[in-house]
Amino acid sequence: MEELVVPVFLQCFFEFLGTYVMILLGCGVVACTTLKFSKGFGSGWVVITLAWGLAVMCGVFIAGPYTGAHLNPAVTIGLAMAGKFQWGMVVPYIISQMIGAFLGGLTVYYFYKDHFDATEDKDTKLGVFATIPAIKNLKRNLLSEVIGTFVLILVILFLAEDGNVSQVGLGSIGALPVALLVVVIGMALGGTTGYAINPARDLGPRLVHALLPIKGKGGSQWKYAWVPIVGPILGAAFAVLVFWLYKTWC
Amino acid sequence: MEELVVPVFLQCFFEFLGTYVMILLGCGVVACTTLKFSKGFGSGWVVITLAWGLAVMCGVFIAGPYTGAHLNPAVTIGLAMAGKFQWGMVVPYIISQMIGAFLGGLTVYYFYKDHFDATEDKDTKLGVFATIPAIKNLKRNLLSEVIGTFVLILVILFLAEDGNVSQVGLGSIGALPVALLVVVIGMALGGTTGYAINPARDLGPRLVHALLPIKGKGGSQWKYAWVPIVGPILGAAFAVLVFWLYKTWC
Amino acid sequence: MEELVVPVFLQCFFEFLGTYVMILLGCGVVACTTLKFSKGFGSGWVVITLAWGLAVMCGVFIAGPYTGAHLNPAVTIGLAMAGKFQWGMVVPYIISQMIGAFLGGLTVYYFYKDHFDATEDKDTKLGVFATIPAIKNLKRNLLSEVIGTFVLILVILFLAEDGNVSQVGLGSIGALPVALLVVVIGMALGGTTGYAINPARDLGPRLVHALLPIKGKGGSQWKYAWVPIVGPILGAAFAVLVFWLYKTWC
Amino acid sequence: MEELVVPVFLQCFFEFLGTYVMILLGCGVVACTTLKFSKGFGSGWVVITLAWGLAVMCGVFIAGPYTGAHLNPAVTIGLAMAGKFQWGMVVPYIISQMIGAFLGGLTVYYFYKDHFDATEDKDTKLGVFATIPAIKNLKRNLLSEVIGTFVLILVILFLAEDGNVSQVGLGSIGALPVALLVVVIGMALGGTTGYAINPARDLGPRLVHALLPIKGKGGSQWKYAWVPIVGPILGAAFAVLVFWLYKTWC
Repeated sequence: MEELVVPVFLQCFFEFLGTYVMILLGCGVVACTTLKFSKGFGSGWVVITLAWGLAVMCGVFIAGPYTGAHLNPAVTIGLAMAGKFQWGMVVPYIISQMIGAFLGGLTVYYFYKDHFDATEDKDTKLGVFATIPAIKNLKRNLLSEVIGTFVLILVILFLAEDGNVSQVGLGSIGALPVALLVVVIGMALGGTTGYAINPARDLGPRLVHALLPIKGKGGSQWKYAWVPIVGPILGAAFAVLVFWLYKTWC
Repeated sequence: MEELVVPVFLQCFFEFLGTYVMILLGCGVVACTTLKFSKGFGSGWVVITLAWGLAVMCGVFIAGPYTGAHLNPAVTIGLAMAGKFQWGMVVPYIISQMIGAFLGGLTVYYFYKDHFDATEDKDTKLGVFATIPAIKNLKRNLLSEVIGTFVLILVILFLAEDGNVSQVGLGSIGALPVALLVVVIGMALGGTTGYAINPARDLGPRLVHALLPIKGKGGSQWKYAWVPIVGPILGAAFAVLVFWLYKTWC
Repeated sequence: MEELVVPVFLQCFFEFLGTYVMILLGCGVVACTTLKFSKGFGSGWVVITLAWGLAVMCGVFIAGPYTGAHLNPAVTIGLAMAGKFQWGMVVPYIISQMIGAFLGGLTVYYFYKDHFDATEDKDTKLGVFATIPAIKNLKRNLLSEVIGTFVLILVILFLAEDGNVSQVGLGSIGALPVALLVVVIGMALGGTTGYAINPARDLGPRLVHALLPIKGKGGSQWKYAWVPIVGPILGAAFAVLVFWLYKTWC
Repeated sequence: MEELVVPVFLQCFFEFLGTYVMILLGCGVVACTTLKFSKGFGSGWVVITLAWGLAVMCGVFIAGPYTGAHLNPAVTIGLAMAGKFQWGMVVPYIISQMIGAFLGGLTVYYFYKDHFDATEDKDTKLGVFATIPAIKNLKRNLLSEVIGTFVLILVILFLAEDGNVSQVGLGSIGALPVALLVVVIGMALGGTTGYAINPARDLGPRLVHALLPIKGKGGSQWKYAWVPIVGPILGAAFAVLVFWLYKTWC
């Protein structure tokens, strides 16, 4: 996604706001489908994966024209490695994304607080905020996050290459391919680790879980927390490498 | 959404007709999924949230080119506060929306009457017309409606800002982003109160429930009825404030 | 939808082919979700309603540029009443649609024959071909079909009015609004009669059920068969009337 | 889909990469919904059919501008028969597709290995890679694959005829009709054989199942393997014939 000429503080504001709305909706759907007495309780995987894709879409609606809507440190770092984003902006972007993700998780907590209180299971509470692997196996969990993010970034790079994402005058409809890409990554590659594929998406809300006095909460599983940080960055790097090989080749 | 030059009575007619179709389809899907013996009985949250989004889309198809398709007093008031809609038209629009919502709810009743008669549960009957919080807690229920509507209006304001909603020559496809936005708000933020996020959507059909001699009906829960009126208006105001801060800032 | 200048026999061929593919996919999804041992068995309302909408979309992909893709006698009659289609072509179109619907139903039978043989329930077998009301009540069932088709035709007329369906250079994407319209009508207004909203969709496959020696089949419920013929035509007429009142008014 | 002037080796690379991503996501969703302890376990037909459609979409995003995104030997052979693709490129394309499908299936295995190990049922393990008919009946299973692929290729030919797939300046959005076409074919015509409708999609991952030392695996059902190869090619040929009749006729 091509950026307009937008002042730095405004770019940071939009990375923050887009990530905030994305995490509010994304962690929101997990709360909605897993917390007790919620009207969406038990509606499951189809709702979770569709809503996460649309949550990304809403973030792109907001931030797209101003920042290209990274909303994800792995995207920011990947684009910088690909030479499509200046390195000097990487840290400000990531900080903005992290603040947005943290506040998004915080809002979900106050939104669903009565349902958190009504839910006993500790892992369900943590699962609203952070990803938990289905079968703990750090090496393979890492592989999951690498591959999921690899597909995400690779397809985005080719979409941008074809001038297909935001330059084609399609306006907001241009966010739909990315939304559907996130939907299918969730449906197909989310079964093992819950597809963080975004370090901010996992770390920001995990901090909320750790810091807030949530009734009856368990640990925040910090020993796993590096996987959804390192995995997505490696996956993005690998996608950029494949893309760079293709560009060099031609 | 930008309005064409359309006479006032025609604008009101289209706000009425668009809201009518939206509520007919929106309350219709709740009837279809919750009333006994319906072919859609038990199909649940994914059907309800998808259909409400598409119901809004159909309302936009009808009213979009004539009124910008508010279909929602919170949108009308929000746009007036944002200086994007003249205050003198606010009351006519809201009256038109209310009549549409009332008649939409009425139509759903006669459409599904045999299934209403076959259903015993009083809350299920009321739930077709009006929202009922999962856990009654007026302050937090209000917060839910504020936040849900805040996201709705904020994203719409940025979509309009980017010239992305109806001006881009996309015709009816331009209604898709708003439809998908409503879908994800339902999936993520509908679990607590059932996401009215629209005073007319709740009050109009609640009046139908109160006035009609529905077999075996219970009370219309008027004590709760102010929440889905006040919440959405506050949420819209808050979204306009954030948007205005952004515009002043630049 | 605007027609190109296309010879009459070719128009009829495309109405036939579009309806054939639509019914093959539409009746196919009912077979897939209700017949024993099918891989889609029990996947229910969300799959049925989504697939019927996409089945219409595929019909529009095929017939759209040649005939405007009526695929439905109620649409053909409605457009003729609205003065947007010549009366002399009404009978040829309806015959083409009926042949397409009949052969579509026939194909579904041979496609799923082993699963028909494995299924005992007589109503399930009939339900693949024709609509069966959830609660038999001819007057109200008729009302259901009237209202469902009214919404279908009304929204299509306004979509066409706004030049939004096929003229906007969107190519096949222009079929998406109609597809989603059919999805939401099914989800919201399909619970009572199973939303024929198309006389050919019901009568064509019902004839297949009546004529074929389907193992263990029951009656074809001909006493009900007039409802999904008369209802959609009345609904279309009513939508045209509302549309005509709007046009006269302005 | 119209091809750009792209060197042969690059076309092969993109057929490979597009098919790889498609199979990784497509076989991935079967693993995600059927293997034990997966977070998507039991989410069923709606998730499988939606995700396969979106998997094809992602393949088109990658390969579309370079090769027209066949991703399917039946498409390649069908287009060659229709005179829209040079015969000399058929074998290179099919080899590229097969390699992509094989490596896609391989990646799914390592991605979900812990869940394969936790799953006992032999058919479930095979089902992640290859299609298994619900009711074994080779003649009718063949008919299923013929009809499913017939619909796929027929609609694609008419979409291309109308200049609707990739030439209309819609960029990546042009992949949506094909994605939705695959979704509805799955929902409606997938109940009998699991809709391979693509020889590479079935044979490539079946080879992975045969060659890998998967814990507790059963046979790879090679006696059935010719059906999802011959069926799709026959179906494509039949679609091309109908299309050619139409073109000759006019």
